[in-house]
Amino acid sequence: MSIRTKTIAIGVDLGGTNLRAVAINADGQIIERITYPTQAQEGPNVVIKNIVASVRTLLAKIALEDIKIIGVGIGAPGPLNSETGVVIKAPNLPGWENIHLRDIVAKELQLPVRIENDANVAAFAEYWKGAGQNSKVMICLTLGTGVGGGIIIDGNIFRGSHFIGAELGHITIKYDGLRCSCGNKGCLEAYVSATGIVARTIMAIRSGATTILTDMVDNDLNTLTSELVYQAAVNNDSLAQSIMHETGTLLGIGITSLANIFNPDFVIIGGGVSKAGDMILTPARQEVQKRAMPGIAEHLKILPAMLGEDAGAIGAAGIILYNETAKISD
Amino acid sequence: MSIRTKTIAIGVDLGGTNLRAVAINADGQIIERITYPTQAQEGPNVVIKNIVASVRTLLAKIALEDIKIIGVGIGAPGPLNSETGVVIKAPNLPGWENIHLRDIVAKELQLPVRIENDANVAAFAEYWKGAGQNSKVMICLTLGTGVGGGIIIDGNIFRGSHFIGAELGHITIKYDGLRCSCGNKGCLEAYVSATGIVARTIMAIRSGATTILTDMVDNDLNTLTSELVYQAAVNNDSLAQSIMHETGTLLGIGITSLANIFNPDFVIIGGGVSKAGDMILTPARQEVQKRAMPGIAEHLKILPAMLGEDAGAIGAAGIILYNETAKISD
Repeated sequence: MSIRTKTIAIGVDLGGTNLRAVAINADGQIIERITYPTQAQEGPNVVIKNIVASVRTLLAKIALEDIKIIGVGIGAPGPLNSETGVVIKAPNLPGWENIHLRDIVAKELQLPVRIENDANVAAFAEYWKGAGQNSKVMICLTLGTGVGGGIIIDGNIFRGSHFIGAELGHITIKYDGLRCSCGNKGCLEAYVSATGIVARTIMAIRSGATTILTDMVDNDLNTLTSELVYQAAVNNDSLAQSIMHETGTLLGIGITSLANIFNPDFVIIGGGVSKAGDMILTPARQEVQKRAMPGIAEHLKILPAMLGEDAGAIGAAGIILYNETAKISD
Repeated sequence: MSIRTKTIAIGVDLGGTNLRAVAINADGQIIERITYPTQAQEGPNVVIKNIVASVRTLLAKIALEDIKIIGVGIGAPGPLNSETGVVIKAPNLPGWENIHLRDIVAKELQLPVRIENDANVAAFAEYWKGAGQNSKVMICLTLGTGVGGGIIIDGNIFRGSHFIGAELGHITIKYDGLRCSCGNKGCLEAYVSATGIVARTIMAIRSGATTILTDMVDNDLNTLTSELVYQAAVNNDSLAQSIMHETGTLLGIGITSLANIFNPDFVIIGGGVSKAGDMILTPARQEVQKRAMPGIAEHLKILPAMLGEDAGAIGAAGIILYNETAKISD
């Protein structure tokens, strides 16, 4: 066993419902993983206690003999300052305002801790061990309830001047378009998030489109999900197919803006909606080919994310390991 | 005279009509400037001869005693590779394809030469000696015939993976909107460039709006310019005022996308259209305030460029001096 494989880092993905914690060796392999309830409703103190407990539980599962734990990375939601280690605000975690997450956890565990935005660590994971390896400039879009973004430049997470940039779901694609959850009109998120897909489907149904979806939800459109739209499309429902195709086209419009700005090697598409795969990626690629500035599309690969739901935790461990392993010899 | 002020760099801004060359000392002051005809129609060889001649003419005007010329920076149009020193293509310069500009000029002048995209050097100039000093992240938009962009992160020009990024005029603000010169629909440039302002004004006049502009151009709308629209607005013409206000609003929509991505300290607005000043900057600021993600607008200043038409040449010299002066003591 080399010194290298004896070194591990812990990554924690702080979700609204569950904590996901992984132990990763210096080669980036997951050697152990657990999930643990977040208990977000109980407030920051309980959530932090659960973070600490999840790490201790994880470590208890590992034979610690000859192993060196070099630190804990935490991917947390909301705007946060990774330099001071403070979560400024976490929309889905009640009571989280100006929480000194890094220092509290570091003191409890007596280990070095780093915190980072959850979309950023997911993007970093794809750069480090996923679909975006060896890129100079990589963009990651996570299509879930909302649309998260991450930007990796020369192996570094780009955060902006006050750590609140990379809000890639909130680029405008149609300034007088659909209302977004952020209050703005026409954001990419308002169209291609799970929420946006459902909203566009309901609009089409209300405009008189016929679809098996109305049966699938027993005429209760409140229970419609983007997953059901995807399933209906797989089952050759023409409305659902056109909605999914349009989702890809609209995604391509957003990617075009990002590609003209960043001239990236890769745009990686993750999140629940990305399970639709080529059903959205093919029209997205076609739209970028059609719209982007000369040379941009030929240097760009638009690929599905590789690391799935572990991405956040892997990236959180990765921000610890990536910098440290350079110093470690075999 | 300190060693520092004896060191100079030459900056050349390669325009379609004229070359602008400046000599700048280590404090960033212009000690001499000239313009010289580009003769673009004569092809690359003549243009390059003129670049060399402009630098020699400039140097002849300077008392060279005790002066050390550390290099020549050239801001050139079109996609170019600043690492290899090759201009890939320059749309406004006939015959420019894969021209090894850096090495040819370096050999002729026997001086170190660097080349950089013209929008990038203008942005760098504003960072180095203009409106964007001391920023961590700075965006520059140049509103001229088209809309150019530059991105400065931690004092470095961001170019993208293949040096063709930062095409900030070609972010989409309305995907089914006005046709852009790039072939895409709804680019920021199609709305807020001089060309876009004229196009929107003509559309409004053709829709029946009355304005003193029709008299100002003797009913020949082909001779309408954005400068005339600005003048009509100053003279209280209500159509012109509404077009200029709308220009600011649309600019604000584009800035919002960039601000949500980059979380910049400054967005600097330059180019001919920016002479309208607060007539466009005030509605732009209001729109960003209304649309941007929480925290983004409060950390952002939207300011007019400071360096005017010298920006390109100053920035071209700046990319030589900025890195070198760190090594020079007083």
